[in-house]
Amino acid sequence: MDTSVPVRAAYAADQGPVLDYAEPLAVVWAKGIEGVQAVLRWASETGTAVVARGAGTGVSGGAHATAGCIVLSLERMNRILELNPLDEVAVVEPGVVNADLNAAAAEHGLMYAPDPASYRISTIGGNVATNAGGLRCAKYGVTRDSVLALDVVLADGTLIRTGQRTFKGVAGYDLTGLFTGSEGTLGIVVGITVRLRYLPVRTCTIAAFFPDVPTAASGVLAVGTARVQPAIMELLDGATLAALDAAHGSALAARGNALLLIQTDGFGAAAEADVVREVLAGLGGTVSTEGSVEAERLVDLRRHSRGSGLAEQLRVGEDVAVPRSALVGYVAELERMAAAHRVGLRVVAHAGDGNLHPTFWVGTAEGGGQQRLDAALDESIAVALSLGGTITGEHGVGQYKLRWLPAEQQEEVLVLQRRLKSLFDPAGILNPGKAIPGV
Amino acid sequence: MDTSVPVRAAYAADQGPVLDYAEPLAVVWAKGIEGVQAVLRWASETGTAVVARGAGTGVSGGAHATAGCIVLSLERMNRILELNPLDEVAVVEPGVVNADLNAAAAEHGLMYAPDPASYRISTIGGNVATNAGGLRCAKYGVTRDSVLALDVVLADGTLIRTGQRTFKGVAGYDLTGLFTGSEGTLGIVVGITVRLRYLPVRTCTIAAFFPDVPTAASGVLAVGTARVQPAIMELLDGATLAALDAAHGSALAARGNALLLIQTDGFGAAAEADVVREVLAGLGGTVSTEGSVEAERLVDLRRHSRGSGLAEQLRVGEDVAVPRSALVGYVAELERMAAAHRVGLRVVAHAGDGNLHPTFWVGTAEGGGQQRLDAALDESIAVALSLGGTITGEHGVGQYKLRWLPAEQQEEVLVLQRRLKSLFDPAGILNPGKAIPGV
Repeated sequence: MDTSVPVRAAYAADQGPVLDYAEPLAVVWAKGIEGVQAVLRWASETGTAVVARGAGTGVSGGAHATAGCIVLSLERMNRILELNPLDEVAVVEPGVVNADLNAAAAEHGLMYAPDPASYRISTIGGNVATNAGGLRCAKYGVTRDSVLALDVVLADGTLIRTGQRTFKGVAGYDLTGLFTGSEGTLGIVVGITVRLRYLPVRTCTIAAFFPDVPTAASGVLAVGTARVQPAIMELLDGATLAALDAAHGSALAARGNALLLIQTDGFGAAAEADVVREVLAGLGGTVSTEGSVEAERLVDLRRHSRGSGLAEQLRVGEDVAVPRSALVGYVAELERMAAAHRVGLRVVAHAGDGNLHPTFWVGTAEGGGQQRLDAALDESIAVALSLGGTITGEHGVGQYKLRWLPAEQQEEVLVLQRRLKSLFDPAGILNPGKAIPGV
Repeated sequence: MDTSVPVRAAYAADQGPVLDYAEPLAVVWAKGIEGVQAVLRWASETGTAVVARGAGTGVSGGAHATAGCIVLSLERMNRILELNPLDEVAVVEPGVVNADLNAAAAEHGLMYAPDPASYRISTIGGNVATNAGGLRCAKYGVTRDSVLALDVVLADGTLIRTGQRTFKGVAGYDLTGLFTGSEGTLGIVVGITVRLRYLPVRTCTIAAFFPDVPTAASGVLAVGTARVQPAIMELLDGATLAALDAAHGSALAARGNALLLIQTDGFGAAAEADVVREVLAGLGGTVSTEGSVEAERLVDLRRHSRGSGLAEQLRVGEDVAVPRSALVGYVAELERMAAAHRVGLRVVAHAGDGNLHPTFWVGTAEGGGQQRLDAALDESIAVALSLGGTITGEHGVGQYKLRWLPAEQQEEVLVLQRRLKSLFDPAGILNPGKAIPGV
């Protein structure tokens, strides 16, 4: 336990926007399940709020401290307890870093599929807490689709095991799904049994530059019509290309106003890549040739393209998802909003599953910048919802998106969720003020 | 509504074993959401139990009538409300038959992946209620993995919408997952938004006969080690082959004591099939050649291999799942049990995901047959659990498996589930006596 000022400050917030800054009373590092149980028993007795935290890489403020809370860090519970290549199953503690699990799995020709952009630093526990997505989701699913079973410490310190070790299992209600994505508000995940998948025997990467975003987006749909299922299908707009150029000295923006990055994998990777290149060239794309090293480098750049920005900018990255056919229209709407509210805009999208990360920004020196930024954000959410979308595809609601949830979900659903929260956490000590509004 | 004797008898049970026969007071066919709401409002006011039912093809007794209940049939709510090929999404009423949705999707080069053996007659609503599996699960996931959003009528008649239309979405707790597989005990699903997937451009089918089950099971693991992900990987034991021979006049049993049926699909189908043939031949399998028409016919036979049996037999089909590495040992245990309890045994397995369907039988004329059958069943469940397995991979708990659930799940988990049931259905009118014990 540490109650020093610098540590309390270091654990006050994750990487999400802070609406209501608070420092924890103390930071506690759990070393095992019994420690977590002891903390929760104590917290229940004293009515102390507990904010669980992995690596603190979340971007919705799900791990922000709240007034009077303690932060319970699980980063030191970082052992891979089992990796069984025949069962294609691994059992890990919550503090295991996503990339470390993947490295261990790769030794057996396996992978852990969910790959949030933060995979090099984020923990499996945090990935479970937010039901994290990533680049490979369109083909391999999100975190929930790879979680078989959970060990969870409930608010009163009781340890339970949900789910099963087998790939299939329908005994009882789906508690595993209920805890996954619940952002530490229903219980603390202290053990995770995941399904691994075969590491693809081959991957092929294609980069295609287009004159504009609508044409690139039509490429996304055309690849689908050709019945190709890419592992990765990323769309970057012209402003993102310009930002990459500024950061890396490249000259991407000169080659088009939109870039589609596609990776196929498995035994059919080369055949799928051939079809993708033909389809995209037919739409007027400038398509990389087979085995392009540059295309692979661009995917790597893309994985790290959201964080970049200038110190003198206020910026907010969004995480909406829309039905795939609405991609083109939604990007056009975003551009209209940016102009109307006089804010900067760049867009990257996991286009294969309609999940967009628009970033809006204003100069910090500009008067009224924050208000214009907020207005643009609010409108971007409203329009995504009007198109049949969601306020969060993969980042979670956390603290930051609470205000938008009632625009997506009807009051009757919010009532049910509050009652679920009360059922699991009657005293409201687990990560209060996160995930669902009004508790 | 129909209260006639023959109709009440026809809707008294699904295809699962009957432990506690009861006929409903009446059968009501809903024609739309408002009708379902009206029934539930009336049932809430009068305290009448409501058993929702699709095609009645379940095999765990999840749709068995209970004393004093009405059966609410959703089979006439059978419209495909929307099929959007660009979004790869369909919206259906619960009574749509799985095969009908697949036929409609195929016109657009798409499929609805979950394929329970009953797909030609079972409904999507029933598939959702049981979180149904099928043959293609190892590659494409179970029903839950294809359900994006649900329209649900709660016990008091309130209509809610869970989930989202997009492939990704993490807003709020996972109510969609909670209702999926809840067997009509938490609410009545009246609308389902599903994700479709690309219809594979090609499929390749391989049949491999082996001298015994252990060698065939080692083939399952060897295919995995070669990093091939088949769409279908079915294991049939010698007794199943003999049963098929008796039913169809074939001569399969003479060719081996175990058959592995594997289907690869997609752009890599042929390359994967080449690897599979090489791997299985290397283990001593007698492997079908490329493009074998017989192999395809055998997959078709397999889809219909469980129901066969003689009228003078008492038999029960099981549905356990074990970790894949335990397949061999578990089948050996099953054979030992069958001998010890003097019951017949045949085994088919969705071997790719460790989901086995052993069938035990005795002659009806034998004294004490039912007792021996029950003893074998109980032991088969206990051993599956001891190997890290589950009592139900894909059929659901229903009424029939209630007695085994406490052997799999700890009391604290059962308590949580009872409290969830009370939260959604405080008066206990929704399919009482199903899915979780003690409510």
